[in-house]
Amino acid sequence: MTRRVVVIGGDAVGMAAASQALRRAGRDSVEVVAFERSHHVSYSACGIPYWVGGDVDGPDALVARTAAAHRDNGIDLRLRTEVTGVDLGARTVTACDVDGGASTTVGFDDLVVATGAVPVRPDLPGAHSPGVHGVQTLDDGAGVLDGLARRPRRAVVVGGGYIGVEMAEAMVRRGLQVTLVDRAPEPMTTLDPDMGALVHEAMEGMGITVLSATAVSGFETGDDGRVAAVTTAQGTLPADIVVLGLGVRPNTELAGAAGLPLGESGGVLTDLRMRAADGVWAGGDCVEVLHRVSQRRVHIPLGTHANKHGRVIGMNLGGSYATFPGVVGTAVSKVCDLEIARTGLLEAEAAAAGFEPVSVTVESTTRAGYYPGTTPITVKMISATPRRSHRSGTRSW
Amino acid sequence: MTRRVVVIGGDAVGMAAASQALRRAGRDSVEVVAFERSHHVSYSACGIPYWVGGDVDGPDALVARTAAAHRDNGIDLRLRTEVTGVDLGARTVTACDVDGGASTTVGFDDLVVATGAVPVRPDLPGAHSPGVHGVQTLDDGAGVLDGLARRPRRAVVVGGGYIGVEMAEAMVRRGLQVTLVDRAPEPMTTLDPDMGALVHEAMEGMGITVLSATAVSGFETGDDGRVAAVTTAQGTLPADIVVLGLGVRPNTELAGAAGLPLGESGGVLTDLRMRAADGVWAGGDCVEVLHRVSQRRVHIPLGTHANKHGRVIGMNLGGSYATFPGVVGTAVSKVCDLEIARTGLLEAEAAAAGFEPVSVTVESTTRAGYYPGTTPITVKMISATPRRSHRSGTRSW
Repeated sequence: MTRRVVVIGGDAVGMAAASQALRRAGRDSVEVVAFERSHHVSYSACGIPYWVGGDVDGPDALVARTAAAHRDNGIDLRLRTEVTGVDLGARTVTACDVDGGASTTVGFDDLVVATGAVPVRPDLPGAHSPGVHGVQTLDDGAGVLDGLARRPRRAVVVGGGYIGVEMAEAMVRRGLQVTLVDRAPEPMTTLDPDMGALVHEAMEGMGITVLSATAVSGFETGDDGRVAAVTTAQGTLPADIVVLGLGVRPNTELAGAAGLPLGESGGVLTDLRMRAADGVWAGGDCVEVLHRVSQRRVHIPLGTHANKHGRVIGMNLGGSYATFPGVVGTAVSKVCDLEIARTGLLEAEAAAAGFEPVSVTVESTTRAGYYPGTTPITVKMISATPRRSHRSGTRSW
Repeated sequence: MTRRVVVIGGDAVGMAAASQALRRAGRDSVEVVAFERSHHVSYSACGIPYWVGGDVDGPDALVARTAAAHRDNGIDLRLRTEVTGVDLGARTVTACDVDGGASTTVGFDDLVVATGAVPVRPDLPGAHSPGVHGVQTLDDGAGVLDGLARRPRRAVVVGGGYIGVEMAEAMVRRGLQVTLVDRAPEPMTTLDPDMGALVHEAMEGMGITVLSATAVSGFETGDDGRVAAVTTAQGTLPADIVVLGLGVRPNTELAGAAGLPLGESGGVLTDLRMRAADGVWAGGDCVEVLHRVSQRRVHIPLGTHANKHGRVIGMNLGGSYATFPGVVGTAVSKVCDLEIARTGLLEAEAAAAGFEPVSVTVESTTRAGYYPGTTPITVKMISATPRRSHRSGTRSW
């Protein structure tokens, strides 16, 4: 008898899981129905800034495998179709056509929850005005490019995480005057502040105005209703286009409503096989995972994890026993020519996890000093030993 | 009272030790006399192939700090002066002027043995003929360039280690027809053979003929007495210039004659502070070090270790307590556009050290697939658990 797998979300996790399951179990044993509410599947959201900046042709170049290819592989893929409810008792999902069609209910034997994340929108006046863009899906990327087609002159990026920093660079490359506003003391809080300061410096070096330690209080609109300025405690920043890079939160509305367990970080809680409940699997930006250094459960939305989750889920669906043992906090990015990488824990993260961190920062070169193309590199290493426990909570010296 | 430190060898270890000692203890407490038999100090021998290949201007660009700079720092530096004897009992060294001057005897309180390594010359007919070049010092590099000035057409490189592979590339870039002859099944035996095969492929891709598993039996000379061919079991290879890349062995003649302890790999044996005897320190290519993964003592001649040894010795001379805890087997190189790196143990090294290695090889890309400049990368990971001991020496299954 054929087992039916229903997949909610057609990006990395969902399509990798579907493909693996079919490859391992065969079409005679497994039938896959996949729902995706956007126009695209299997895309690299992390490439959007490079598409906006003009380094990459988009959106097709960012699609690792097309809808047609997935359908050829035997996946019943339904684009522009949003799942609106999951009934774990009845083992059904209900989905509706985003463009106004009918709703449909499909039964499942196994369910893959791959609903991803949603960009954080600040609860501030004007945050939903036209011209204020989140960046999460390829449709969002197309939205920013539509915005750029209006020939804006001044861009403000709110938030200095990966997407914020990368989008600021992309818009400078498009010739805009760019200001990045960030609450934190330095951009890229996935680095220690002393390393973030190097990112700050590199951004200013390419002409981006970086306003750190600055809170945004609202968004003003012009006569046409579009965003015209970003207001901050330090003053008002005129803006023809605004990009939000305030991070994302796990998209767990469906999962939560269905009664799936959520963890302390807000992501769906799974076991090491990425199973959230009997016959229900979840992975990617909507779950939380174990950080293998801190031993805490964390939400780190990255495509590299999502691909692995999808493969693990697909292997399990296909009859194997596969696990995702956790993450170690590795991520890479770049600003202009400055390449940025991290792994493990920040000093503050290490302290929060109960370690006593010590660090050393080394200034060196990427190649032997005599070799052409040598550039400076700064390496910060953090070493940590478990903190001795103190019953009184105070130290004895 | 001033303590006198005598340094034998003016490359990385010797001059780093001297500089650190002076910086930490001050000229009032420490006096340094350094002997170097070549024309150069503090040079990057690893850069010689790039100098020969034309990527780097030499030899000055390969000198990290000049003799004049060291003298300005207070070091009594004697170039072209070779130490011929060490008397540990009398605490003296005897040195003579290489260009025919008188010999001199100098007393020491502390001695730094930094005599480096010597290229292995095969014990084969013709191995010392003109036109057969070792590559170890800047003077050797100048010798190869003198050889190239004679406009040779055909070069044969004997040995497929780092220097052999890099020199083969350098001479191809100079327009020569290059053949590399190597006894091993694949070049670069610091990699597992399956990874060495990628180096082989890259070399052939740039037009180098690679003869693996081929033993050299001798060197023929022409009427002018210069090398004219390399003979192998597989046939005779005409050669206008020959470069030996057969590795190096620790240069321990002086140390051995003085009675310093030598280890199983043939290098000077030191403790973790790089001390070979009371008041006698040694480091760099002439010592053996602890491999922290295999826990064996090994001879791995690399400038990166030498620099660290020199600093450790200098700190100890200057009154601090510093140690060099060992190496983990890291090295990097390149052939044409192929970048090569290793760390830890090879599969065979792991097995020899008593581990049961398992490995996985991953083919991926250096960047996200959509990003400009993406190139293929092959990563081999080796994991090993200690082998269970078997009293009988035979397995029970």
